[in-house]
Formats: sequence, structure tokens, C-alpha cells
Amino acid sequence: MNQERVMLYEGKAKQIFKTDDVAKVIIHYKDDATAFNGVKKTSITNKGILNNAITTIIFEMLEKRGVKTHFIEKLNDRDQLCHKVEIVPLEVIVRNIIAGSMAKRLGIEEGTIPSNVVYELCYKNDAYGDPLINDDHAVALGLATYEELATIKEMTLEINQALIEFFDAQGIRLIDFKIEFGRTEDGTIVLADEISPDTCRLWDKETNEKLDKDRFRRDLGNVEEAYIEILNRVSR
Amino acid sequence: MNQERVMLYEGKAKQIFKTDDVAKVIIHYKDDATAFNGVKKTSITNKGILNNAITTIIFEMLEKRGVKTHFIEKLNDRDQLCHKVEIVPLEVIVRNIIAGSMAKRLGIEEGTIPSNVVYELCYKNDAYGDPLINDDHAVALGLATYEELATIKEMTLEINQALIEFFDAQGIRLIDFKIEFGRTEDGTIVLADEISPDTCRLWDKETNEKLDKDRFRRDLGNVEEAYIEILNRVSR
Repeated sequence: MNQERVMLYEGKAKQIFKTDDVAKVIIHYKDDATAFNGVKKTSITNKGILNNAITTIIFEMLEKRGVKTHFIEKLNDRDQLCHKVEIVPLEVIVRNIIAGSMAKRLGIEEGTIPSNVVYELCYKNDAYGDPLINDDHAVALGLATYEELATIKEMTLEINQALIEFFDAQGIRLIDFKIEFGRTEDGTIVLADEISPDTCRLWDKETNEKLDKDRFRRDLGNVEEAYIEILNRVSR
Repeated sequence: MNQERVMLYEGKAKQIFKTDDVAKVIIHYKDDATAFNGVKKTSITNKGILNNAITTIIFEMLEKRGVKTHFIEKLNDRDQLCHKVEIVPLEVIVRNIIAGSMAKRLGIEEGTIPSNVVYELCYKNDAYGDPLINDDHAVALGLATYEELATIKEMTLEINQALIEFFDAQGIRLIDFKIEFGRTEDGTIVLADEISPDTCRLWDKETNEKLDKDRFRRDLGNVEEAYIEILNRVSR
């Protein structure tokens, strides 16, 4: 890495660097992986390279479908050029099939197909364990306005539809995913962060084999292989 | 108590008995008090008598304002005659001022006045600790339809306005409250359960003295006296 780069922020899986243009940043994808609010940590070989590639393909697909994102271009194996945004501190989750924290919190068997799509907001705050909230909590906390929340929900449901179709064509079931949004300088809400096996549950359509971060969370082995499989499929 | 009465259900604070009319039940108010999902237990002298009287006054006030409730009439010190309903397994919460679980979960100082009214749904399920949910979870769990949830929200915000005005006139600040709804035989959504110092946070407007179940939860003493004070004020 270029030692002259000025880091603006370091997250669990990515670093953000300044560029000469104040409105643009470089997002660098690391191999670090954490789970359970940082309690479980590891490094997954080549994860940064794989997630950078997967996110690039997905964000380009979404842009083509009219979804506004922070993504500008992939610069190299681990770096993306993106519009600089102020992240809205919400984890926006969509669940097409019940798994993970929702299954556990509400006593629903993993794999249950609900009659409706489940949309969730969590407050992105490690100290409080990213707790589930609703629109009223988000406004009371000053995280976003009701208008921004309506935009975020509308965009998220569009993104869900696009992702379901995209993954289905590659033999993958989109169980659930987490996305984040940001505000550009003029206040426009755009999709930010990443979409990858770190942030989605992706099951093989035929075998229900898990091809995502649950392989790490649940010690299922073949973590890197699963990420490679996803990259291979979405690259078709 | 009449030994011939057939009990249909026993909750933490109330018992429900059959009547000769299948569409009506008798709700009997006990002195038992629990907190923190049943972990802390006690008996508060005369609580059943006080909450029966307070709930009667409040439900009659709400009925006059056009809110549909299960309440028919107070029969005696501890018993009410009510329409039989199927309880919607939701704890419906309104917060005008931040306190209790919301303050704790989200790291907000108790007493903070939010810019908006906060409306919350919890899944009424002791085994899972009455977890916070949203409309999508409620529908996925089969607890209610989106149409019923819209009705419940609309009624709840009306009830909040009525209660704020009612308590304010008696020198009481309505911090937050929990209500429950039921379906009558024809599917009409009506307010059920109770509204009392067990289910509301009520602070004296001048001194901010707590006049509710938090006196028991937090071992502040003078629990019965606080309930008597509320009955005296709402009886004016």
C-alpha cells in the first residue's frame, strides 16, 4: 500500500482513504472478518479481493437498474473509488427467509418462509449491540428524518427485488442481507458500504449449502471457497 | 370469591372467568405484581382494587371519546364485566418521554423528551422476553394483519392524546404506557387489558415523583400510596 494515503476511517472489514478530490474516497477491502459484534475474529484469505470484486459487480448491476450508489469504479484488487458520503448509522436488513438473529430472537425455525418480506432497521452502534429499532426510534435518536427513512425503505425493497433476480439466475437463494446508506454532500441518499457474502446470506438453490459468512460464524469450514464460488457465479 | 366461577385464564395480575353469556367475561384484578418478565415478584396491598377502579375510570373516559374497548361495567371492588376478546399477542407501547427499556437499550438518558412520539410493538411472549418487533415481524409471526396493525396504531395514537390530556388535567405527566388489543367475535379490534399505574409511567408534573410501578421495580417504597394517589387524582 501507498504510505502517503491518509486514512479517514477504519472499520472491521474496510479502510477509507482520502483522495485529491474531497468529494471522493478510496475504499480498501481487508481480509479481516468479525462476527457477533466483534467477539469472534479471524482473517479470511483473499476475502478483501473477493468482496471488492463481488461488490463491484453487484453495485454496477444496481446502478444499471437505476439505484443510486456511492460506487464510482474499481481501482485494483482491493480498492474502489467511491463518492464520499456521511453514513446513516442504520443497518438496513431485508429477510426473504427467516434465519440468524430473527430466528433466534423470535423462536422461528431457520429456513421458514414468511408470507411477507421482513424489513428491519438496527441502530449501528457497537456499544449497544446494534439493537433493532423502528422509524420512531431512528428519528428520536436523530439518525435520520422520516422522509429519509421512507426513501431508504423504498430503495431497499427495490434492491431486494434486483438482488433476488440476480442471484436466482446464478442458482443462489438470497435469504437475507444487510445494507447501509449514506448522504452525499447535497443530502442525496445513496446505497453505500458493500454487498458481499459478508453482508448477505446466500444458499445454493439446489443443496441449500451456505455460501456466505455463516461458514465462518458457525465454523463450517471452506469459507474462502464459498466466497470464490459466489464470485465465480456472479461473474458469469 | 364465588367458588362456582370457571376460570378461563390466569395472567400475572388478573384472572378471567366465564359468565352465562359466552360473549362476556369477568376480569378479576389481583394484588400480585411482577417485573422484569416475572423475575421480581410481590403482592401490593389493594393493588387489584385500585387498578380496577383506575382502569374503570379511564376506559369509561376513552369510551366517551369514541374509543372502542372491551369494558362493559365495574361489578365490584375487584371485578369488571367485559366483552370476551381474543387478545392480539402484542404489547403496544407509546413513549412521550424516554424511560425504561428504551433508555437502556439505546443509551438515552431517562427523562429525555424526543422530537417525536415513539410507538413500539413488542411480541407478547414470556419465553422470548417480550422482544421488540415491527409490523413485518408481527405479520410474519401471524400475530395480526397489516390492516389490523394500522387500526391498532391509529387507535393507540388517539388513546395517547386522550390520556395525555386526561392526566395533565390532574397534574400528572404521562411518560409512557403499554396497552393491549383484542378481537371481538366479529373481528373488531378493541382496546382490552387495563390502563393503570401497572401499565403506565406517571410522574407528578411539579416534582417528577414517580407514581407508578417503577416504585416497585426500583424499590422506591410507598408503592400502594402512589397507586392511591393516582386513584384520588383520576377520581376528581
